[in-house]
This record gives sequence, C-alpha cells and structure tokens, in this order.
Amino acid sequence: MSNIKKTTEPAIKVTFLGGVGEIGKNMTALEFGDDIIVVDCGLAFPSSDMPGVDLVIPDYSYLFNNRHKVRGIVLTHGHEDHIGALPFVLKDVPVPVFGTKLTLAILDGKLREHKVDEPNLVTVKPKSIVKLGNSFKVEFIQVNHSISGSCAIAIHTPIGVVVHSGDFKVDYTPIDGATTDLARLGELGGREVLLFMCESTNVERSGHSMSEQVVGVSLDGIFADNMDRRILVATFASNIHRLQQIIDLAKKYKRKVAFSGRSMINISDSAAKIGELRFSPEDIIDIDKINNFADKELVIITTGSQGEPMSALTRMSSNEFNKVKLGINDTIVISASPIPGNERMIYSVINNLYKLGTRVIYESLRDVHVSGHAYAEELKLFHSLLRPKFFVPVHGEYRHLKRHAELAEKMGMRSVDVFVPEIGNQIEITKRAMRMLDNVSSGSLLVDGLGVGEVGNTVLRDRKHLAEEGFFVVTAGIDSRSGELTTLEFSSRGFVYEKEAEDVYKSCDEIVRGIIGSLDLRDFSDYNLLKTNIRNEIKRHLFRRTRKNPFILVAVVTI
Amino acid sequence: MSNIKKTTEPAIKVTFLGGVGEIGKNMTALEFGDDIIVVDCGLAFPSSDMPGVDLVIPDYSYLFNNRHKVRGIVLTHGHEDHIGALPFVLKDVPVPVFGTKLTLAILDGKLREHKVDEPNLVTVKPKSIVKLGNSFKVEFIQVNHSISGSCAIAIHTPIGVVVHSGDFKVDYTPIDGATTDLARLGELGGREVLLFMCESTNVERSGHSMSEQVVGVSLDGIFADNMDRRILVATFASNIHRLQQIIDLAKKYKRKVAFSGRSMINISDSAAKIGELRFSPEDIIDIDKINNFADKELVIITTGSQGEPMSALTRMSSNEFNKVKLGINDTIVISASPIPGNERMIYSVINNLYKLGTRVIYESLRDVHVSGHAYAEELKLFHSLLRPKFFVPVHGEYRHLKRHAELAEKMGMRSVDVFVPEIGNQIEITKRAMRMLDNVSSGSLLVDGLGVGEVGNTVLRDRKHLAEEGFFVVTAGIDSRSGELTTLEFSSRGFVYEKEAEDVYKSCDEIVRGIIGSLDLRDFSDYNLLKTNIRNEIKRHLFRRTRKNPFILVAVVTI
Repeated sequence: MSNIKKTTEPAIKVTFLGGVGEIGKNMTALEFGDDIIVVDCGLAFPSSDMPGVDLVIPDYSYLFNNRHKVRGIVLTHGHEDHIGALPFVLKDVPVPVFGTKLTLAILDGKLREHKVDEPNLVTVKPKSIVKLGNSFKVEFIQVNHSISGSCAIAIHTPIGVVVHSGDFKVDYTPIDGATTDLARLGELGGREVLLFMCESTNVERSGHSMSEQVVGVSLDGIFADNMDRRILVATFASNIHRLQQIIDLAKKYKRKVAFSGRSMINISDSAAKIGELRFSPEDIIDIDKINNFADKELVIITTGSQGEPMSALTRMSSNEFNKVKLGINDTIVISASPIPGNERMIYSVINNLYKLGTRVIYESLRDVHVSGHAYAEELKLFHSLLRPKFFVPVHGEYRHLKRHAELAEKMGMRSVDVFVPEIGNQIEITKRAMRMLDNVSSGSLLVDGLGVGEVGNTVLRDRKHLAEEGFFVVTAGIDSRSGELTTLEFSSRGFVYEKEAEDVYKSCDEIVRGIIGSLDLRDFSDYNLLKTNIRNEIKRHLFRRTRKNPFILVAVVTI
Repeated sequence: MSNIKKTTEPAIKVTFLGGVGEIGKNMTALEFGDDIIVVDCGLAFPSSDMPGVDLVIPDYSYLFNNRHKVRGIVLTHGHEDHIGALPFVLKDVPVPVFGTKLTLAILDGKLREHKVDEPNLVTVKPKSIVKLGNSFKVEFIQVNHSISGSCAIAIHTPIGVVVHSGDFKVDYTPIDGATTDLARLGELGGREVLLFMCESTNVERSGHSMSEQVVGVSLDGIFADNMDRRILVATFASNIHRLQQIIDLAKKYKRKVAFSGRSMINISDSAAKIGELRFSPEDIIDIDKINNFADKELVIITTGSQGEPMSALTRMSSNEFNKVKLGINDTIVISASPIPGNERMIYSVINNLYKLGTRVIYESLRDVHVSGHAYAEELKLFHSLLRPKFFVPVHGEYRHLKRHAELAEKMGMRSVDVFVPEIGNQIEITKRAMRMLDNVSSGSLLVDGLGVGEVGNTVLRDRKHLAEEGFFVVTAGIDSRSGELTTLEFSSRGFVYEKEAEDVYKSCDEIVRGIIGSLDLRDFSDYNLLKTNIRNEIKRHLFRRTRKNPFILVAVVTI
C-alpha cells in the first residue's frame, strides 16, 4: 500500500465493519461521494468466552452516523453470517435490502420474528443490475455455494468496477445446473476490475473442492446399504441442494421424508413455497406421523449437524426428544463438517448415538459432505479471470487473509496493491492508488436476552470471573443505638462444596466478629471503611484457605 | 459377551477406571485372587464447561477401598494422561510405581512439586519382567510413540497373558533406532494371548502413520529456507525425539539452541541428565542470553504448541513475553497438531503471530508434525501379531472404541469376544469366557485450587449459571420495633450494563417497597416468607424486563 498524500482525485472508500480477521458477521461498506452501500450484514455466534451471549453483531455506528448516505444493503446469500444482523440494523438504518429469492425468503422470516415493520426488500436475479444513489450500479452474478441463490457482486462506480466474491465455490455439476458465471467474471476482467474483494475461508486447502454431486453418490450408497433401517440425515437447513438430493433419494428408495427441528421445518417450507425445493406433498410427512410408517419407509432430515445443544439431533442422542426415539435399527448420517470450535459438541453427540446402538456415518467414514467454499485452485481461477488492479482478501481469520494475500502475490500482484484488512480499517482507492485512512469505530455488539449492547466487556469479564471463582456475600446487621452486631450471615455460590462452605463460614464469622469487636459501634459513622475492612480481610482469608478469589459483597445494615 | 452364570473358574477381573469413552485420565486395574495391579494413572485437562477447574483425575475410590491388594502401578509412558494423577493417588495408595527411565524422571519432578514423600519408584527397561504379588509377572515391551521410553505391557497371569498396548505407533525408522518390538509381540501371539487391550486414538485414520524422520526432513528444509532469520519451533516438551532433531539441525546450521517455557526447560533438563537427550553444553544457551546472538545464530524451542493461555508462545504472540520479542525476521514453526478442542486457541495464536509480521509455518503448509498414535493399518498389525482370544479397545472416545471393535470383528473376531467398555465397567475373564460384573464407583475428581474433590457438580452447575446470568443481591434492613424499612440496597455482577442496572434497581426498589408496604412489620415474624416473596417477585420482574435469570439472594436484616 502506497503512502501517498491525501488526494483530490475521485475515490472509493471501503470500510471493513466485520468478517475480516474473524469468522462471521460479514459487513463491508462502499462509499463514493454522498452514497454508501453495504455488502452483507451478518451475525456471529458467541465463542465460549462469552457466556450468556446469544448473538454477536457488528458495531454499525459508522452506518448509523452516516445513515443519510446509505442507499441500500446488498446481500450475497442467505446464511446467518451474511444476513443475521439485519433485524437489528434495519431498525436504526431503514434502507432497501437487495437479494435473491431464497435469501429474502429466509430474511423475511427473521424480520417478522423481530417485528421489523415494513422492510423494503427487493428481489433480484442473477444478472440483475440495480442503481443505488448516483454512484453505484450493483450487478448480481451467480455463484455456487452451500445455499441456493448465492451471488458475487460487481459494483460499477464512476472510477471502475469493484467485485466482491461473496461466498463461493466452482461446482461444474451443481444440483440445479446453475454454475458459477465464470463467463461474466471473465468479461469483467477483460475490461478492467479496479478492486477485487474475495472470500478466503479455504485458502489453506490445496486443489479444488468436490462437487455437491459427490454427496449424492455417497448417500445413494448409504440408502442402498441400509434398506431395512430407518435413515436420519443431519445437515444444515439452508443447504437446499443437499435437502433436494435427500428428498430425491427418498423417492427413489420409496421412503417418506419428515423434517425435524425448527429451522429445518421453516426453511424447507420457505424454499418449497418459492420453488427452490421441489417435492410432491404426499412424499413429505409430519414428524408427528412417523410412527405410522415402518423404519424402512422413512428418512428424517434433521437439524443438529454441529451438535448444537438444543438441536433436534442432540436431544435425540441423549434420548430427550419425544418425537424421535433412536435405537439399533437407525442409521444416522452427519452430512456436515464440524465448524472449528464445534468439534467437542458434535463428537459428543456421535458418541451418544453409538451408545444408543445406532449406526453412525460421518465424514471420516464416507464422503457425506463437501465444502461450499473455494479451495486454492478455485481462488486462483477467480484471480485469473478478474485480474484486478487492487486486491483485498476478506471473509476469514487473519491467517486466511494473510495467506490469500500471499496467493495473490504469487500470481503476480505487487504487494503494494494488496491490502490485508482488520476490522475498522478504512481504505481509499483511486484509479491510481490505494491508501489507508483512519480507523472508524467498529467491533462487536453483544445481543443478550432482549437487548442489543446490554452486555459490555465489564459484564463479560465479571461473568468469566464468576464462572471460575463464584461469589461470596457477607450480610451484617448492626444496631447503631446499642452498638451491637445483631445479624451476621454468609452465603456463596459456585465457590466450594456445601460442606466445605459451612466450615469456611465459621472461620469467616470469627474474622468479622474480630473486626467489629475491636470497634465501638455506638454512633459509628464510617460504615464504608468498615465494609472495606471486612471485604479485604475476608478476601485474604478465602484465598489463603481455598486458593479461590470469589466476588465478595459486603452488606452492612444499620438501624 | 456371553451372559454365562457366575463361575468358580479362576478369573481375571479388569476394571476400567478412566480413559475409555473419554480422552485422558487413563487408568485400568487388573485383579487376580488377592492381587491388583494398575496400568497407568493419568489426568485429564478440564473442558470449557468446567470453569475454574485445574485438573481432572479418575475417581480412584475402588483402588483406595482395595488398597491392601494393590501391588503396584505400572506406567506405559510419561505423558500427563498416563502419569498425571499419581501425585494425588500415591498419597492415598502408596504402592511401588514401575516405569522406564524417562517416565520416572518426569514423574519424579511432579512428585517433588506435590511433596509426595519417598515414593517407591522402580526403573525398568524394555524386556524387564517384574513380579507383582503372587499372580502377576509384568513384562515391558518397547514401542514407538511421541515420547521416548514408551512400552506396551504383557501381564503374565496364572490363566494366560494379557497385553496392554499403551500408546504406540510403528515407526520403522525412529530417531533413536529403537523400533516397536514386533518380534516379541509375535512370539506372545504364537503362544496364546488371552486378552488384548489396545489404544484406539487414530482408528479413524486409514493407512499407516508417518515416521518421525519425515518431520526432520521438513524442518531441514525450513532451516535451509530461513538462513538469515531467527527460527522458533513450538512443540510438546515431552517429544524428546523431536527436540533431538531440532538440536541436531541447529548444530548442522550452526545455530545455538535456547529452551523457552517452564516444562520445556524442566523436561529437556531431565532428559539430558539421563542421557535421553544428547547435546554439547556449549550448543545450548540460556533464554536470557539470546540478545547476545544474531537472529541467524539462534533456534528457540518453546512450549505453547496448543495455544495454551499462559504458555511462552501465546505470551510471545501477544507481545507479553519479555524474554522474546517477535518481529518480521522471525520464522515460527508450530510442530504439533491441535488436540480437539484447542483449535480456536492455537489459531488465535497463529493469527496474532501473523499480525506481528512473523512468518508462520504450520501443519497445513508443511509436514512439521506426525502423530504418535497408530493408524488403522498399524492397529491391524498388532491384532495380527497377537491374535488374542478376547479384545477390549481402550484409550479413546466411545466412537473410537466402537470403531476399533468393528475393526477387530472385520479381522475375524467374534463379537461376543469383543467388549466396548465404559468408565466404571468391570469384567471377568476366564480361559473360556468374558462377562460383565456390576459397575464399580468411578468418574472424575476435580482438582481446583489446593484441593481434590472440593468442586462438585452443584458447584460447577452454579458456576455455569453464574457465567450465563450473573447474580443479583437484595439487602433490606427492617427496624422491627417501628416496623420501618430502614435500608434497601441492590447489587449485581455479570448481569447487565451498569447504566441499565441502575434503572433495573429503581424498578426493583418499587417492587420491594410495595411488598413491604402491604405488611405490618411491627412484631412481624415470618421473615422467611417475606424473603421468598421478595425473591419470587424480583425473579419474575428481572426475567420479564431483561430475559435474564440471575442468581437472586435476598438478605433481610432485622433489629
């Protein structure tokens, strides 16, 4: 990146509000003159160091502060990490949202749940071009991914074309026949692409991802090998092509399909309504009706492929799901890979499924899943087609972005024309050069219970402390007229065993009585000092005795 | 497993106290007549749902209750999951411990730390046979693994031979030339093996693991490619052969070696003392002296290959390790794979290393690590050599054990002769048959702060609740003579933002005053009922208002 001085040349500003240097909550803003458009608006799921947090969304104060300029939000596809923040963002930045049919069908359900009134949702098709403000024409370009209706985006600006890959792979034999529109990308590259932003998820995998058809072949083999058994397939609800393959196999093998799990039922329903998922109504049965059918007449398609604690499969595996009881005549196919961080959860589900006597088929046994993200050779294909002047890797942890930058440089790009972004970075691009501006306010808003941003870092730090050490409360009542200590009680939670706690309370009792006994409490006034003294002595004592450092709360009540 | 009736034939009892159906804390007891011997005595590291827990060890009450019978503990190798519980168990069950030189050298350090006085440690060599009680002769058989001095164990009993594989792989070209003693295993198999217990870690991986030599070749390439740069290698301290290879390469490339991290310094020191690690003293420098050398003259071998929060590499990556400051002239090699569950931690360290401008080389880039555990073909080799009458897979999650059982059955074993154990299972084996007895008391003891077993399930459940919802304390002072409410205070932690909390307190204040106002508190006696009322109303209110369900503590002080 060149460090040229502030320019008066026309320039595009690109602001990285999420999805770079982290997994999830993808959000990028483009700005030219008085117009801002936003590509994607996703959420992230909390990591294990965010107890009690339900969702994480990008800090969108930059958009809020510039809301008079925001002309619209364009969506590449309908995954949570690309659309999940919209119910929150649209309340503050109510702008039109553009996406393909399935993307908006999924979004619509979410907006209703969150009571976002009258959103302005505009359905587009691949090859659609929409004009946003005076500066932008946004073109949708079909790509393959693990959800139908995925698009890359070409943004035509007064100074050149910006291409954002969205999430993609190159599947030459997709289930619906609709391949990544390589020709259009080549056409764009043949003119000139000013800036290419490209996803980086699988940059570490060499070669080329496998076609979704591979999964169909494996599943067909599994259906053939398990003729007399009930078959359950756990997969992502949004992977409509996967669902279609399972439904088609069910038909071939004369089985009825039942959907299990809230998101599976919702999304298959939405997708069927708009014609993305095709089946005859008589081939689908309600999950409550499965007992009317023999095992060999059934396929259950269920959520829970990541071992999510409340999902249908997880509850089945611990025998807590009333609608489906598993046993030795069940074959369970986990048609997904663990997302990093979910390994323990999903393997624990697999262990429990084995303990129930079921047959379990997962990735290490057969090709029951393929990735929806481009491997290194597919990334190189996009770079070759587009031959951009500037390149910014997006959608990945820092290591992915860094290695994607290396890949681009190995393909001949100059390192000054490649920028590895972090959250909050803002860059300015002219026809000639790219430079970094000051960071904008950015980061995470934690969604907890009913509210956004109710949980801050202090609360999270406190929760972690509570989780590790527990809390300890001292309540003392003092009659200020007589100077007598009338009440002295202790309680704790998450600290030590109840029996051990009783002993600890006794020792604390002595300490507090010692402190109070040394004072004349008639007409005593400095209760804050007394509280602090008690707190410090108890803290020292508890640590010495238990090596724990719980939160200590001292309440002194005087009358 | 046959369900034959209780037999009076001579029988061996095998009790599975750990390591089956879970990763870590391996411990198996064998019993014949009045003699018990224990194979391994390991710990596990707490998972993320055990906040504040330091270590997990097997519930060894079965051994404690039968301690008069326990003749000794035999160790297969020196990894934590095989020896780490000894400092706790030996205090209650003080019996002789048998292991090879390096195993006992590592153990000795731990016992000193934990002030276990005068342990009876007996050094054995491969091919050693030790007699334990009247029933057992224990033979140590050399195997390859990721730590030197690893052994399988053949236990000669009055009714036949029991073989326990320990952790092993088959490396035909190990660094020290000492290969797995396949000949001896074949010899045992040629007579008759009654029971084979075999580790199952990598049963899901097909083929054969790579030789440790492969890592040497990769590292040599990395040294050659990074001539002018400082090189850091992160690996497990106990992988002495890996350390030896790095030290040898340092010599070849004229670099000095510095060890970083407490366990790296301790274990390299112990291993050097007993001759397992060979180097000239002048080739090793203290980590404090690295600034006297140029980057190209240095190799730093460090802990932290799993991204452990307090490890040297993790602290270096966040620039918090004073002894080593990283920068653009550093090449960091992560010579290890993430243990399942550690992915996020290690990738976060790698991201930070990239941000510091260092070059990072890890598994997806080059062969800088090989597994220490047998793949499927190596497991089959052991089964072929030993041809046991009965087989029990050990050392793995339930899915591993299950698939190892399937492997044995595919090789021709009858399913009644194969048993997949869970923790606490006890089986009885005669020359003819194997049957299950009642379970024994078993499970986990959590080590926290200074004590064993101070943390129970209630405490853990409370901690998880605290972590997700926080706590809320109401303190009320009532003058029982006047019936007046003299004090009313609220506090909370880990609940909601401070600002939000103030508003919540105000609304709670009204609620509590409402409850108390409706009562005549002069000579009131049922304070417990009052507390319960306040608690319930506050609970309902907080949930309605914040969707949170914190611990609520109500203290009412009366005078």
